[in-house]
Amino acid sequence: MGMDHYVRLNPSNRLRRSPLFDRVRAEGAKAYSVYNRTLISQWFGTLEEDYAHLKTAVQVWDVGGERIVEISGPDARRLIQMATPRDLSRLGSERCAYVPMVDPQGRLLNDPVLTLLAPDRYWLALADSDMFLYLKGLAAGAGLDVRIFEPDVWIIAIQGPRAYELAERVWGRMIHDIGFFKYGWVDVGGKPMVLARSGWSVQGGFELHVDGSDYALPIWEKIMEAGRDLDVRAGCPNLIERIEAGLLSYGNDISVDHTPFEAGLERFCHLEDATDCLARETLLAEQEPTRQIRPVEISGDKVPPVAQLWPVRTLEGESVGKVSSACWSPEQQTNVAIAMIDRAYWQPGTRLVVDAPDSTRELVVAEKFWGRT
Amino acid sequence: MGMDHYVRLNPSNRLRRSPLFDRVRAEGAKAYSVYNRTLISQWFGTLEEDYAHLKTAVQVWDVGGERIVEISGPDARRLIQMATPRDLSRLGSERCAYVPMVDPQGRLLNDPVLTLLAPDRYWLALADSDMFLYLKGLAAGAGLDVRIFEPDVWIIAIQGPRAYELAERVWGRMIHDIGFFKYGWVDVGGKPMVLARSGWSVQGGFELHVDGSDYALPIWEKIMEAGRDLDVRAGCPNLIERIEAGLLSYGNDISVDHTPFEAGLERFCHLEDATDCLARETLLAEQEPTRQIRPVEISGDKVPPVAQLWPVRTLEGESVGKVSSACWSPEQQTNVAIAMIDRAYWQPGTRLVVDAPDSTRELVVAEKFWGRT
Repeated sequence: MGMDHYVRLNPSNRLRRSPLFDRVRAEGAKAYSVYNRTLISQWFGTLEEDYAHLKTAVQVWDVGGERIVEISGPDARRLIQMATPRDLSRLGSERCAYVPMVDPQGRLLNDPVLTLLAPDRYWLALADSDMFLYLKGLAAGAGLDVRIFEPDVWIIAIQGPRAYELAERVWGRMIHDIGFFKYGWVDVGGKPMVLARSGWSVQGGFELHVDGSDYALPIWEKIMEAGRDLDVRAGCPNLIERIEAGLLSYGNDISVDHTPFEAGLERFCHLEDATDCLARETLLAEQEPTRQIRPVEISGDKVPPVAQLWPVRTLEGESVGKVSSACWSPEQQTNVAIAMIDRAYWQPGTRLVVDAPDSTRELVVAEKFWGRT
Repeated sequence: MGMDHYVRLNPSNRLRRSPLFDRVRAEGAKAYSVYNRTLISQWFGTLEEDYAHLKTAVQVWDVGGERIVEISGPDARRLIQMATPRDLSRLGSERCAYVPMVDPQGRLLNDPVLTLLAPDRYWLALADSDMFLYLKGLAAGAGLDVRIFEPDVWIIAIQGPRAYELAERVWGRMIHDIGFFKYGWVDVGGKPMVLARSGWSVQGGFELHVDGSDYALPIWEKIMEAGRDLDVRAGCPNLIERIEAGLLSYGNDISVDHTPFEAGLERFCHLEDATDCLARETLLAEQEPTRQIRPVEISGDKVPPVAQLWPVRTLEGESVGKVSSACWSPEQQTNVAIAMIDRAYWQPGTRLVVDAPDSTRELVVAEKFWGRT
């Protein structure tokens, strides 16, 4: 990737910094993005080096860009249910849940992870949109009794196959009792905090919800120190790993232009039971999408970054989709990518072309995402 | 300013580019910010060179980050009025209006410019938050009959004392008939488009609302060509000019933590008449703020960028405010800044100290903003 893909970002108070920003920058963060108006690091070595390390060791991520919104009060659950087709009544206690959130037209507004702290108290760890504002507006319009605010909570993720060993060193054997997308309470500087078995990779691990900025740096240092001989490193969500895993990025792969069915999120839609969801009727009528997210492979050498959607065409020139994320995969030895593809062309093996900014390349619809186990 | 204030921004589809991005980059944009998830340029020469040029000549700005939201339908006006303390019934036709927008608790959510296209059709040119989502939620909760979406509209601003001469060359003498914060219809590539006498500077000029991406580049070239002998240059909102003018930046100077009264926006609050505003009762009780935005001067040589709020203290150490924006002013020969200051200390001439990241400096509350005429 040539330097000319990058631009220099001017700092301002408007672009927030997590309590770990300076510490993580000192670890060698080499590029940033802006996520929920918060600076987030993009890689430390190279994307490829970070990827190889994430899949074999353990990384600690400052993912403060996943801003937390707290919703509490007697109508909290109802408010959230109004905005998601996932049936919240199926969730037990001490659960986290991936919840696609939609407007009344069934279009995606965000896809946060919901943490059920109490029957009347929830956290949303947001993807990159002000879902906070939608919920505030919805509550105001519907006259619901809720409180919605951004608490001083910051996520530190521990990700990678050795994440369990590292977490055990810090918090003891109880961490093995935390089921997938469940959470437990751990001690951080004398204060109980949420440790969720979740994270934006498929390498396993946890997300610590640091409850108070002042606690972030001491626990960061403690985790890094405890993992020294496990080759622990500062890291961040890795583009290669997340594309291979099919982890969708809101704003990149999916947006307010798409339904959960177009996003391939039908397993999180329980339209029979989610009767409070405002989009229920619309989504019931749109369960058979005419386009959908697909894993695709792109020929040629390493692709440039996807700075804007790349048009996908048939060999005859008909427009049939868009590539939204792409990168070179050292393991697959090809470019792996995520695309929204029209129904008539989304079968695995379909051969198409994509207009990447550097050249027109061949594109083949893949059977499945590469990194899922 | 040392290079170490800046970070490298990794491109992605999530960070949008206006239709003029490549063209404006080629004009020499040297740094960017991210505004409404859209890349916006920050300066071309130096901040100081851009400032001097803006105040004497004319610049053309690609301000695509001011994303447009369209609200139409029978309940459009009521919906907007529910979210602003400004009385919309006072506005005539072909008007633009600066409208602080608030949640039911009277806290600022955005401060867009509203354009009244028709009694049932409005555009909001947004500051940096998804006001779009709040309005969508509010409409859904209240069951209002409106349509809310982002049209393919992009603002090109023409700013500076010679903006009128330049606009006349492009669209003729009719541009002189457009009153301040009013708009007229001009021809752009055969299509009528909104030319508003507004802009994020106090040097005078217009904001052309380009209605369709494909029209952006041709009209950009036409304007630049028409202004060649007026020393027209590509530009962008200038930090020095806007601080001197007291133009507040949402997310920098004001946020969801503040009321319009704390922001010094009382002249846009018509609480007696804005009876549909959901925050009316709360704001009626909070018209005497205990802190408020103030112009301040900061001693010493050129300050670094305000990457995070700077604490303001009394000489005795009591915390009494925060600096949110600051820069060196070549005309004032001091650092000009915007701060939120507690009532007991906001009188002009009050001497305080500020903990800037490089050093503790003296701070004096100024009589008024420097750049207002």
